[in-house]
Amino acid sequence: MFDKLHEECGVFGIYGHPEAANLSYLGLYALQHRGQESCGIVASDGTKLRAHKGMGLVADVFKHDSVFANLPGSSAIGHVRYSTAGGNDFKNCQPIMVDYARGSIAVAHNGNLVNAQELRNELEHQGSIFSTIADTEVIIHLLARAQCDALPDRITEALTRVKGAYSLVFLTETRMVAVRDPNGFRPLALGKLDGAYVVASETCAFDLIEAEFIREIEPGEMILVDKHGLKSFFPFPKSVAAPCIFEHIYFARPDSILFGKQVYGVRKEFGRQLAREHAVEADLVLPIPDSGVPAAIGYAEESGIPFQLGLIRNHYVGRTFIEPQQSIRHFGVKIKLNPVRDLIEGKRVVVIDDSIVRGTTARKIIKMIRNAGAKEIHVRISSPPTSFPCYYGIDTPTRKELISSSHTIEEINRYITSDSLGYLSREGMRAAAGAPEGSGKSFCDACFSGYYPVKFPRLKSDSQLGLF
Amino acid sequence: MFDKLHEECGVFGIYGHPEAANLSYLGLYALQHRGQESCGIVASDGTKLRAHKGMGLVADVFKHDSVFANLPGSSAIGHVRYSTAGGNDFKNCQPIMVDYARGSIAVAHNGNLVNAQELRNELEHQGSIFSTIADTEVIIHLLARAQCDALPDRITEALTRVKGAYSLVFLTETRMVAVRDPNGFRPLALGKLDGAYVVASETCAFDLIEAEFIREIEPGEMILVDKHGLKSFFPFPKSVAAPCIFEHIYFARPDSILFGKQVYGVRKEFGRQLAREHAVEADLVLPIPDSGVPAAIGYAEESGIPFQLGLIRNHYVGRTFIEPQQSIRHFGVKIKLNPVRDLIEGKRVVVIDDSIVRGTTARKIIKMIRNAGAKEIHVRISSPPTSFPCYYGIDTPTRKELISSSHTIEEINRYITSDSLGYLSREGMRAAAGAPEGSGKSFCDACFSGYYPVKFPRLKSDSQLGLF
Amino acid sequence: MFDKLHEECGVFGIYGHPEAANLSYLGLYALQHRGQESCGIVASDGTKLRAHKGMGLVADVFKHDSVFANLPGSSAIGHVRYSTAGGNDFKNCQPIMVDYARGSIAVAHNGNLVNAQELRNELEHQGSIFSTIADTEVIIHLLARAQCDALPDRITEALTRVKGAYSLVFLTETRMVAVRDPNGFRPLALGKLDGAYVVASETCAFDLIEAEFIREIEPGEMILVDKHGLKSFFPFPKSVAAPCIFEHIYFARPDSILFGKQVYGVRKEFGRQLAREHAVEADLVLPIPDSGVPAAIGYAEESGIPFQLGLIRNHYVGRTFIEPQQSIRHFGVKIKLNPVRDLIEGKRVVVIDDSIVRGTTARKIIKMIRNAGAKEIHVRISSPPTSFPCYYGIDTPTRKELISSSHTIEEINRYITSDSLGYLSREGMRAAAGAPEGSGKSFCDACFSGYYPVKFPRLKSDSQLGLF
Amino acid sequence: MFDKLHEECGVFGIYGHPEAANLSYLGLYALQHRGQESCGIVASDGTKLRAHKGMGLVADVFKHDSVFANLPGSSAIGHVRYSTAGGNDFKNCQPIMVDYARGSIAVAHNGNLVNAQELRNELEHQGSIFSTIADTEVIIHLLARAQCDALPDRITEALTRVKGAYSLVFLTETRMVAVRDPNGFRPLALGKLDGAYVVASETCAFDLIEAEFIREIEPGEMILVDKHGLKSFFPFPKSVAAPCIFEHIYFARPDSILFGKQVYGVRKEFGRQLAREHAVEADLVLPIPDSGVPAAIGYAEESGIPFQLGLIRNHYVGRTFIEPQQSIRHFGVKIKLNPVRDLIEGKRVVVIDDSIVRGTTARKIIKMIRNAGAKEIHVRISSPPTSFPCYYGIDTPTRKELISSSHTIEEINRYITSDSLGYLSREGMRAAAGAPEGSGKSFCDACFSGYYPVKFPRLKSDSQLGLF
Repeated sequence: MFDKLHEECGVFGIYGHPEAANLSYLGLYALQHRGQESCGIVASDGTKLRAHKGMGLVADVFKHDSVFANLPGSSAIGHVRYSTAGGNDFKNCQPIMVDYARGSIAVAHNGNLVNAQELRNELEHQGSIFSTIADTEVIIHLLARAQCDALPDRITEALTRVKGAYSLVFLTETRMVAVRDPNGFRPLALGKLDGAYVVASETCAFDLIEAEFIREIEPGEMILVDKHGLKSFFPFPKSVAAPCIFEHIYFARPDSILFGKQVYGVRKEFGRQLAREHAVEADLVLPIPDSGVPAAIGYAEESGIPFQLGLIRNHYVGRTFIEPQQSIRHFGVKIKLNPVRDLIEGKRVVVIDDSIVRGTTARKIIKMIRNAGAKEIHVRISSPPTSFPCYYGIDTPTRKELISSSHTIEEINRYITSDSLGYLSREGMRAAAGAPEGSGKSFCDACFSGYYPVKFPRLKSDSQLGLF
Repeated sequence: MFDKLHEECGVFGIYGHPEAANLSYLGLYALQHRGQESCGIVASDGTKLRAHKGMGLVADVFKHDSVFANLPGSSAIGHVRYSTAGGNDFKNCQPIMVDYARGSIAVAHNGNLVNAQELRNELEHQGSIFSTIADTEVIIHLLARAQCDALPDRITEALTRVKGAYSLVFLTETRMVAVRDPNGFRPLALGKLDGAYVVASETCAFDLIEAEFIREIEPGEMILVDKHGLKSFFPFPKSVAAPCIFEHIYFARPDSILFGKQVYGVRKEFGRQLAREHAVEADLVLPIPDSGVPAAIGYAEESGIPFQLGLIRNHYVGRTFIEPQQSIRHFGVKIKLNPVRDLIEGKRVVVIDDSIVRGTTARKIIKMIRNAGAKEIHVRISSPPTSFPCYYGIDTPTRKELISSSHTIEEINRYITSDSLGYLSREGMRAAAGAPEGSGKSFCDACFSGYYPVKFPRLKSDSQLGLF
Repeated sequence: MFDKLHEECGVFGIYGHPEAANLSYLGLYALQHRGQESCGIVASDGTKLRAHKGMGLVADVFKHDSVFANLPGSSAIGHVRYSTAGGNDFKNCQPIMVDYARGSIAVAHNGNLVNAQELRNELEHQGSIFSTIADTEVIIHLLARAQCDALPDRITEALTRVKGAYSLVFLTETRMVAVRDPNGFRPLALGKLDGAYVVASETCAFDLIEAEFIREIEPGEMILVDKHGLKSFFPFPKSVAAPCIFEHIYFARPDSILFGKQVYGVRKEFGRQLAREHAVEADLVLPIPDSGVPAAIGYAEESGIPFQLGLIRNHYVGRTFIEPQQSIRHFGVKIKLNPVRDLIEGKRVVVIDDSIVRGTTARKIIKMIRNAGAKEIHVRISSPPTSFPCYYGIDTPTRKELISSSHTIEEINRYITSDSLGYLSREGMRAAAGAPEGSGKSFCDACFSGYYPVKFPRLKSDSQLGLF
Repeated sequence: MFDKLHEECGVFGIYGHPEAANLSYLGLYALQHRGQESCGIVASDGTKLRAHKGMGLVADVFKHDSVFANLPGSSAIGHVRYSTAGGNDFKNCQPIMVDYARGSIAVAHNGNLVNAQELRNELEHQGSIFSTIADTEVIIHLLARAQCDALPDRITEALTRVKGAYSLVFLTETRMVAVRDPNGFRPLALGKLDGAYVVASETCAFDLIEAEFIREIEPGEMILVDKHGLKSFFPFPKSVAAPCIFEHIYFARPDSILFGKQVYGVRKEFGRQLAREHAVEADLVLPIPDSGVPAAIGYAEESGIPFQLGLIRNHYVGRTFIEPQQSIRHFGVKIKLNPVRDLIEGKRVVVIDDSIVRGTTARKIIKMIRNAGAKEIHVRISSPPTSFPCYYGIDTPTRKELISSSHTIEEINRYITSDSLGYLSREGMRAAAGAPEGSGKSFCDACFSGYYPVKFPRLKSDSQLGLF
């Protein structure tokens, strides 16, 4: 995308496989795009949970084989995280693991709770002490105070108190539980490998470890896996399913199957629909790599205008945790992308990306393409204008920073200096995506429509509440 | 490419700019694809040379801004290196910097000398002590013992003794010298930025720092830059220019202009020619990302078969220096690539890459595409079979390991389990590439033809001599 | 001492000084002998607590000046820790800092609670979640659940539940509280520097920062320091004071003033008394450095036998966190000590140390002195036999490992191969030490006598309960 | 000592033992006091030399056992170094190891050459390239250019050119050579362990590894050890032996036997003689630990005034490579030493140390003792005033900084604020030390007398030439 939005997390779990920690590592490797700031794995050998967590990429945090020797056992859960503001330190790494009266439990969470702060205040006044600033810890404390006996009942008792988006994987010494919130905002898939059950935020994690994809865990469903096998529960009141359309637009990997469809195909279809809605005479279709590629191929196929991979990406950008900011800051997007001048010079170019957030990156890229000699630049965006913040697990800028929330399309076109600008319509998007599987309902598109399926306690105008 | 060949180096130099070290850093950042194992910068403030070198990526070795405070001055040279066997330690990092009777000198070298070992033996018997195993140090010792007075004369005296491939950048306290060997095997370009002269292995380095590309340094040319400006010399006997065609096929970045042409366009033309030579009925054209993309676009355009980016690359692979080899070894290519099943299932697929080295990776990828449901797989390679090792700066396997040197195309086809296999012909490649600019001659294609423009002292059958 | 006993901690606190964190660093530096495995400082700027903690020596954990920039404010507390078994990881570092309903609070603890496990079980069953295995966290949870309002009342409410040894320093955003348990097992001193109040485990910390030593905090006393000054409370029922005699024998630094006396002088007096009780004809008195030096000087003075520092200590042993165990293990004590042969050869030697724990080290040292040519070796120990484990904050071996608990003095003499062995009598020790100041009572000498001033819930025979 | 002088190096070598590298590690451990900034070991397995070197203490640089796996073979040499100004970086670490025409050779050097710069200039003009700024590299280049064939002849040819102080250990693939310069400035001892020959700067290294001390290598002697055993040569013209008296005064460990005597006894004798020359009425004798201890014991014995270890040393100072300079700088000597007030208050104190260099530390310590309540402070120094710099391997300050070179004893007494000050006389020192063994001659005492046994090419007034 032209600017960066961040999905907060990816989760993984496996129960009943002798290489549980190692497979979790691979699963997180495949989910790395969902969170790059920290990661962790908790494994159980049947009597004890052990954790390894750290700041940085999966391949860094788990670079020594010795780590795996310290994670014995046949079940494990893992987590990759993009940290929200203020939370980028070690103690906020997940999975969170605690000892409490009933033993040990660990949890990995993808999503955001909208009533976390209220619950936290209440719990602290009852004497609970929090170790992290993560929403997730609220769930743990509710669990520690739950009155029921059986684990699924106690998890249900705790989750009945929380509102918002959560795809969760719990691990105790002897059991794994996976839950998806009643709206099913965030994805969660179920698979099988050599008889062991596997769960993951995206199916690309199954592909890597060669697990079979069985089905998605349904909105509101709880899965309990233990030595007796797998049980499914639907412990919550029925709710309207509202999976996040942005997973299809940007977050998920194109090779994942999500809400019933493979992402690559959905994105191509967005591009085809975009070509229908915003045709233009041009010489070539140029994607912003890599996010714009499938839509650009769709646009090119539908319009008949040739596709070219004319912006070359430097694959070494972002490979280190700390960039020498001072040294390269003013080089901005050039450090990442460079145009192929011979392709572009004198040509009318259609530039495709999935979204525009702040508009500043788009402006720089268009300037760069113009400097490479483009005669005309027509920007086409494979989603509607992003005008509203997300409260369900995507780290969007506040409304003030979202250029679409305060500018018309024509104003944005002028700001980013393109010759024309077209967004996919909300109807076109819905048509291209189809209905999400298993719900018979529709996607959450609050970031485009402002219609929020789950209400939140108090709304500060123009800012996100309690999420940061 | 289906397996890995390694180009050994990239070089950069700048003279007369207040931000010399910082711009060198950016230049190396853009040249990172030419060598990922070590890098370094030497800067001069007019009276003293200072170096910073290290193992690892440019962004890692130079990640602290403080490094630049220790590299003051208005001239600097830099180097990125892929280390050959046995040489992967710190002391072999370049640029090599030494103190000798005339002051200090640093040198960055791209290429390989074919008579390095003989010269080294001779120098050691005269009492020289070598600190590294690099060919490049031979040049430094010859320079230390040269009898002439003027720097260009002394460099000429030293280089007259050496044979092979070299694009060199020297830096002394007050001067920068750039030299390309008489055959011009490796590229070297000249640019200008705010009045300062810049040299780099590829023009993509100029694009990043917004320097103007002036021209390539010619085979056999020596450029001297000092406070009086730039002087050009041709101190060596005239020789046949033989720039490396493999730069166009694989090594160079597609956005670089090389030997007179932009690489992206040459690669697309290889793909078009390949389509003409090896047409096939199919449903989609699938490149091996990223190396096969431009040729695949060319093939798709020429054949009319739709292009799809159907193998999704994990962008986090290889981002750390040390991989947990034990943990991921047997997952091989899957950790890097995953097919988009919906695209491929039941389809006839043309798979495009630039070359096949050992064949093992190709075999794995084809198996993976087959498992994703492809009905037919037709492999098309945008260069001729690579049957001969390179002695001029590319770290190829020995002949024994080059599958093309000992197997027919049909045998390779069977080994990699494709339904058909087609290589670009040597004639087709030459036609598509055109003649290299500035030479009026032709490319070195020794790795395809076995015709070596510069002879070497002694040839051990089937192995490279002294290069490893 | 001949083997190692470990004191678990040292604490420090300062309120009202612009260089609070920096002075805490120095204070911990002076208290380093009380704990070498981890350390930490928490500072308050009046509105927020900030922590820096880590595994290792004070000089390592705080080696970068930048650390202090992140610890602003005029009050701070610090801690050095020797970790008990199982607890040697980062999350158990102190001070422990938490957020709870009333704000933030940090605590540094020296001592051991005897009913920690019971309280922990009780709290967990009420839904508390523990982050560490430290006794200290029990206090924090009790505090979070306390019903009173004022901080001193709430601390009192919490501490009324706990039994055992504790010298504690608490820090909130605006207040510092120091408490010593009713028995006063562990020391805690009060000082003043430039108008700011300072507390520390030992007065040597005051000497370094040039603070004035005011008095010891009394057994059962609580000190509250805030912007209004210092207040003293005695909130607990009166108890028998029982300061730890082992502080005088071994743990404290000889330059500290403790329980009313300077340690060096007490140790010399132990040596004098030992000479009276166990005179022997000999040529020289040899201390085990550094622990045996003051007693050896006392013995030499009383006996008239010349003192010699004839065992030379390698000052570089133990300077790194991880020793190459494999490489030096079988060199044992020789790596630390080497005798001066010319002094010892043909001589009758009195060897002085403060205690014998397991006897294995004593045996090695005596062998080494014998090999250096000693004619006779008479071992004199400046404390009684250590036959009972400590439950109040010293990490002793279990009874099984304490050689004195199962062997007669004559058996120990044979085991360590000395010609004679004499221990200071319990009466001699008490006479030499005098009565501890401020208590009018006597020392805790449970490790010698088996008389434990505070009882513990359940006693497993021959092992320490809940301390490991 | 009251300020710091630095000995530059310690060397070690072993030939013919299966644990050569491991024993070298232990030998360096015992020699650590001779150099703390860097260290290294080079081992030979008979066909190849391998090195491991690094900045820092021996226990840090060799902390991983894996290091030893990379140093196979039955011969090894090692080095610890205090770096001179400008040379404190990695490439100056020793042993220096090079490849040259005859194979590989490594060398470890203790001492300083007085004509290194002239030789270096000459060699550079003949085309030699130097990698380090160490004197030692001059020897290596002379060796590489030597015309003789046999190794001892070639070493002799090289060393005939150099002047100054050197105790050297060379290692080739198959031989070890140890040489002591004709004046024998620096020590070098020969030992034997399980049939293997061992050499070391001090005999304390033999004690640790339980090697037998055979004899010192004589001034001007060369020892060659190979598979045929040990041969001794005296290849240089006979010269006057002049071993360094400062080794006995300060540098060597008290448990080492040096120039025929054990150091502890020599130091005690200095103290006895000092008591005879500078008697004073006083209540106690207080050494500056640890350097002043043996002389203080001697002074106490001779004078009958009681010895007390009344300055307590913080054993954790200096255990990390980088100190937080900003934080502790103004605390100076207090961070290292603290007086035992009860001992000192109201007393007349004799303070003993081995030397005064700049006088600033002495001044601070005396102020500290005065603040602890001393009534009178009498400083006694167990060596004559240090008025002249050393050119033979001790890193002394320049004359300007040596307080004795420009101030009378009475002026120094006033500056350091003592009540009286007495130095050991040069005659007293010589009488107490006796004649060095094996030479029938006398010590080098140039730092006291200004009489330099080996002349140097050019003398800049008041500064050291070519040593920095």
